Amino acid sequence: MSSNRRPRRIVPAPEHPLAAPSSGRRGFLRRAAALSGGALAGGAGVAAAGAELARNLPPNVPEWSRTLGAPILASPYGVPSRFEANVRRRESPGLTRTPHSSVSFTPLQSLFGIVTPSGLHFERHHAGMPEVDPHQHRLMIHGMVRAPRIYSMEDLMRFPSVSRVHFIECGANTGMEWANVAVPTVQYTHGMLACSEWTGVPLSTLLDEAGYDRKARFVLAEGADGAGLTRTVSMAMALDDVLVVYGQNGEMLRPEQGYPLRLLVPGVQGVSSVKWLRRLEVGDQPWNTREESLHYVDLMPGGKHRQYTWIQEAKSVITTPSGGQVILDRGYHEITGLAWSGRGKVKRVDVSTDGGRNWRTARLQEPVHTKALTRFRLDWTWDGGPALLQSRCMDDTGYVQPTYRQLRAVRGTRSIYHNNAIQTWRVDPSGEVSNVQVL
Amino acid sequence: MSSNRRPRRIVPAPEHPLAAPSSGRRGFLRRAAALSGGALAGGAGVAAAGAELARNLPPNVPEWSRTLGAPILASPYGVPSRFEANVRRRESPGLTRTPHSSVSFTPLQSLFGIVTPSGLHFERHHAGMPEVDPHQHRLMIHGMVRAPRIYSMEDLMRFPSVSRVHFIECGANTGMEWANVAVPTVQYTHGMLACSEWTGVPLSTLLDEAGYDRKARFVLAEGADGAGLTRTVSMAMALDDVLVVYGQNGEMLRPEQGYPLRLLVPGVQGVSSVKWLRRLEVGDQPWNTREESLHYVDLMPGGKHRQYTWIQEAKSVITTPSGGQVILDRGYHEITGLAWSGRGKVKRVDVSTDGGRNWRTARLQEPVHTKALTRFRLDWTWDGGPALLQSRCMDDTGYVQPTYRQLRAVRGTRSIYHNNAIQTWRVDPSGEVSNVQVL
Repeated sequence: MSSNRRPRRIVPAPEHPLAAPSSGRRGFLRRAAALSGGALAGGAGVAAAGAELARNLPPNVPEWSRTLGAPILASPYGVPSRFEANVRRRESPGLTRTPHSSVSFTPLQSLFGIVTPSGLHFERHHAGMPEVDPHQHRLMIHGMVRAPRIYSMEDLMRFPSVSRVHFIECGANTGMEWANVAVPTVQYTHGMLACSEWTGVPLSTLLDEAGYDRKARFVLAEGADGAGLTRTVSMAMALDDVLVVYGQNGEMLRPEQGYPLRLLVPGVQGVSSVKWLRRLEVGDQPWNTREESLHYVDLMPGGKHRQYTWIQEAKSVITTPSGGQVILDRGYHEITGLAWSGRGKVKRVDVSTDGGRNWRTARLQEPVHTKALTRFRLDWTWDGGPALLQSRCMDDTGYVQPTYRQLRAVRGTRSIYHNNAIQTWRVDPSGEVSNVQVL
Repeated sequence: MSSNRRPRRIVPAPEHPLAAPSSGRRGFLRRAAALSGGALAGGAGVAAAGAELARNLPPNVPEWSRTLGAPILASPYGVPSRFEANVRRRESPGLTRTPHSSVSFTPLQSLFGIVTPSGLHFERHHAGMPEVDPHQHRLMIHGMVRAPRIYSMEDLMRFPSVSRVHFIECGANTGMEWANVAVPTVQYTHGMLACSEWTGVPLSTLLDEAGYDRKARFVLAEGADGAGLTRTVSMAMALDDVLVVYGQNGEMLRPEQGYPLRLLVPGVQGVSSVKWLRRLEVGDQPWNTREESLHYVDLMPGGKHRQYTWIQEAKSVITTPSGGQVILDRGYHEITGLAWSGRGKVKRVDVSTDGGRNWRTARLQEPVHTKALTRFRLDWTWDGGPALLQSRCMDDTGYVQPTYRQLRAVRGTRSIYHNNAIQTWRVDPSGEVSNVQVL
């Protein structure tokens, strides 16, 4: 497994709030004294640009304050600063046998708010990422319907549309932890998780248009990739909040997210949100396809498999501080993280810094959307001693995120999917943060 | 001025919902018949990937359904499909004298929802886009404060943070229309407009930390670019909802949006949200700097200049259908657009298809955030006749977006900034949509 864990005391990438090369507030006035005659005080007189001005400025004014920058449209489609190159998706070599049926993880430790940048949305493909031509792409709706349909993208984009903010979490997210494998960073423990503003057509609209049979109970969704991945969705979900989406965070879907069309099943494990969607079949029984019988099943303690376990139950994780980071200074720190529930809205998040003995309720960042990532924050003063950081989510059904002990009492230890147990990060007196399992 | 206006009946780029190469719903069954024995019906059996399978599939199955796609992490930081190359920022050659003090416009006609993709956020620079090293960057707070401060980025990122969704609109947006210049597309009429989820520290927190003088009434913000751009913010705003932000749509600010630090003054013309922020000075008078006296002033009918006109008043625009697009088919179309107000929330949007004689109230997409773009939608059946499409925003103060006649009665015709008049798109019987001014 590759890692972005950093050796202690080595100056890390600049995007990281905790990994400061200079230490916290105590340094303010020292640096103020060092700088006050120089760069910043000099800036007060800078009211116009140009070479003449640049020649008259003190030599310690930064280069970028003395010269013209890049012209407009340096990038017709903009990209992050080169100083942010460390903020990227990462794979876990050896996790899968081929890079075509594999995973890349979202760098949750570097993100803010609740929207995941589309360029950092985790990937999970079963036969690689196809390049689908939207002019040729079609969606067929057939089976137990009065009027089968084949739609072009242009047809679909004429329907009344909606935009909604929802998370997608792979059912296997945090899967390594079932076997007590403490992967080093939150990118690897929880990074098969993302949240976007999706735009598309309610599936109920398309089913109405096709005239679905009232005896129908299920819909099969099929992708246009080489895997032709298929998953069953219940008709209850299909008529509730399932969308056929073409938009992601304001623009067309990214190729790795199903361009030009995907299913979006809010609150349900990611595999059900079939990408490169080409076919919807209406029927009265679940299909029991390969991805519903060989994979995406839960092996229970008694030896039986649990099948069609759709919902991603309430879960949360602290993203800062988190595994692989180093706290360089005692004193004030903001603990922040993400919470979500496949059942509805996050109602409350509690945070413990002593491994679950004492809990404080975190602030929830508004707005709190249903079946969407919710950002929580808590003020914390680190005294320099050891700490065990945990977060615990409660959703609006009253369900409370379980401990590992509680989860294993029901589910055993041989599962891959649907691990929503409380995550623990250990803070050493050295400031190092690491992944430990607390039962 | 460059244009992305397309000749009638020429097949346009695929991202456009109205510009369909094949026509609407009437084509469904015809295409269904043509395809039913081929691509899509054949897809039902595709349950695994690989070369062997591909050899057994009918030849009219698309290439991407017969082969492996790109491996995981084809892009560690993802990019849009190559089929979306037409969705890009555009400049308006000749609008400014140099490409370093210029503008690029957001392609509003191609966007969904309310979040603007960071790569498509409009640009406005005064001395080009600097490349600021976040390790060297500092923010100084001084003036009428008890304890002047100089902060590093790491210092700032340790403060308690918030995330909020807000629009930024350049004060000069829609400025060409004052002089009756009907620029062809909504990208050029309204494209100095974007909306993001911003993350940072409330300015009030930093002012408290510095111990601001209770007699202080203004704050000056200064950028670290070659222009050293400066703008005054009132203390009332500074203590209300102004933010010092480092995060945009989940990641660090983009370079062209002020990386690594900018001011964000919600509801106020974009120039006040100073990019590459390096200095905040607290004082008791406005500074009357170059960008507050020579520019960003409103020339009134009597010959006087109006100065410090901060607020972007309630405004809206239909983005689809809009200028340069072609409606290829009669029948159902969804009219959609954006509404916003610098005073608070959008309360209602009315839409007219006959130049303002009759109005219908549009659906507002939830959530409606304060000082944020709000998406509206209205069902419309085009009968093939001429139409004049308009939208009219009302905010939660009761203010109603004016007509050009109403706006000019107060403001005259010699302004550049703060044009929030009702926009009209004319639909010809040919289906062509163009920009016209209706008083």
